[in-house]
Amino acid sequence: MIRTVSFIGSGNVATHLAKALQSHCKIKQIWSREFTNAEVLANTVNAEPIHQINHFKEVDLILICVPDHAIESIVDQLISATSIIAHTSGASGLDFSQERMACFYPLQTFKKEQNLDMSNCPFFVIAKNEDDQETLLELANKLTNNAKVITKEQKLKLHLAAVFVNNYVNHLFGLTEEFLSNNQLNFLDLAPIIATTIQRALNEKPFDIQTGPAIRRDEKTIETHLSLLNENKEMKEVYEFLARSIQKKHHNEE
Amino acid sequence: MIRTVSFIGSGNVATHLAKALQSHCKIKQIWSREFTNAEVLANTVNAEPIHQINHFKEVDLILICVPDHAIESIVDQLISATSIIAHTSGASGLDFSQERMACFYPLQTFKKEQNLDMSNCPFFVIAKNEDDQETLLELANKLTNNAKVITKEQKLKLHLAAVFVNNYVNHLFGLTEEFLSNNQLNFLDLAPIIATTIQRALNEKPFDIQTGPAIRRDEKTIETHLSLLNENKEMKEVYEFLARSIQKKHHNEE
Repeated sequence: MIRTVSFIGSGNVATHLAKALQSHCKIKQIWSREFTNAEVLANTVNAEPIHQINHFKEVDLILICVPDHAIESIVDQLISATSIIAHTSGASGLDFSQERMACFYPLQTFKKEQNLDMSNCPFFVIAKNEDDQETLLELANKLTNNAKVITKEQKLKLHLAAVFVNNYVNHLFGLTEEFLSNNQLNFLDLAPIIATTIQRALNEKPFDIQTGPAIRRDEKTIETHLSLLNENKEMKEVYEFLARSIQKKHHNEE
Repeated sequence: MIRTVSFIGSGNVATHLAKALQSHCKIKQIWSREFTNAEVLANTVNAEPIHQINHFKEVDLILICVPDHAIESIVDQLISATSIIAHTSGASGLDFSQERMACFYPLQTFKKEQNLDMSNCPFFVIAKNEDDQETLLELANKLTNNAKVITKEQKLKLHLAAVFVNNYVNHLFGLTEEFLSNNQLNFLDLAPIIATTIQRALNEKPFDIQTGPAIRRDEKTIETHLSLLNENKEMKEVYEFLARSIQKKHHNEE
């Protein structure tokens, strides 16, 4: 059972996890590249900010919430630790020097300032050591009703899926918002159709409910839309590429 | 003021509009290519189903809710009508033979079986005749708190925007759902991150909150993701195309 946790990192993920975990265990220490950031989070969760990464006291779990590229050097500095050491990255595996290495991956996008209901956030757990895996699963089950042990390959696939539904959907929203705003139109007028689109895609199979000019091969409307995008090269290329992708998928066109 | 309305079409749009309008005006007659479909909707809204399109009684408004390609031949058959004749299409203009031609465009995706709160659905109104435009705007204001008169060009741009946030977002969901399901993973585990993605994109400028491997030029993660898609040519092409599109947009790359 995890009774004590320390954090490396004080950003969006660390902040949300520390706040959620503090009702279930003691948050001991926080280290961050910027001491003042460690202080802010430490004040919030009644923990101690520390200046040096090798000054950690003994705890049951050290959570590493830093950008992917920084994980390895952090882990290498924790060489004397005896705790479970878990990162929270979707893309990284367990190929690090620590024996009790693990991953505690929340499938969500976090922002410090935005409150979030953690109780339905999916948590995926992987650990080198089977006991640690059980212990982390037990901890995740305190935070959420959706915790699972998965393999490294499954986690990579979920992370890839998150790129599509978060990064890529947001990019389509960005292109659309910029286009409307350049034309004195209001992106928020799309809020109701966006809500319905999501609701239906989650209730049915998205490919079964595909609509629009591309799937019905309405080349006249496609041409009209493309001509509206003559001033907007990037969006025009995305429009045409995705129209053809829909046709390939649904009409087996090459 | 619109007191009486008849419908041409009995599909998703006609059904939702007829149900919403019946508290504000009398739905008189319904014509549909399939008489039995006209009967079903007529029963729902206490109207009369008719067999022949030229059997319409005089009403204040005839609403044409049929696929875009069918509008023209329908309008040509209404040659003796004196009502306002409005279609509900995002892509079609007013270049039809009727003098009192108009468009009454709800920016939403409708499905008969799914209840929908019409009160926040954006309605866009255009008419050849200015009085008719005012009359239709007044009608729209009874259904929703978001009704506007716009130009034909603005409507086309909004329709194009809807293709991105509905058709294209749904296509990305479809690719993702199929990929996860082929890998025994659950698309519904993405529901929380999808909800947060939408919420943030509507509260902030989507381009300001873009995250992910593409924008931070994390080529290692991009390569790992692409290698997971070796069995899935279409999704792999979409992944790579959108990663490059994000980089072009945010890093001015060509």
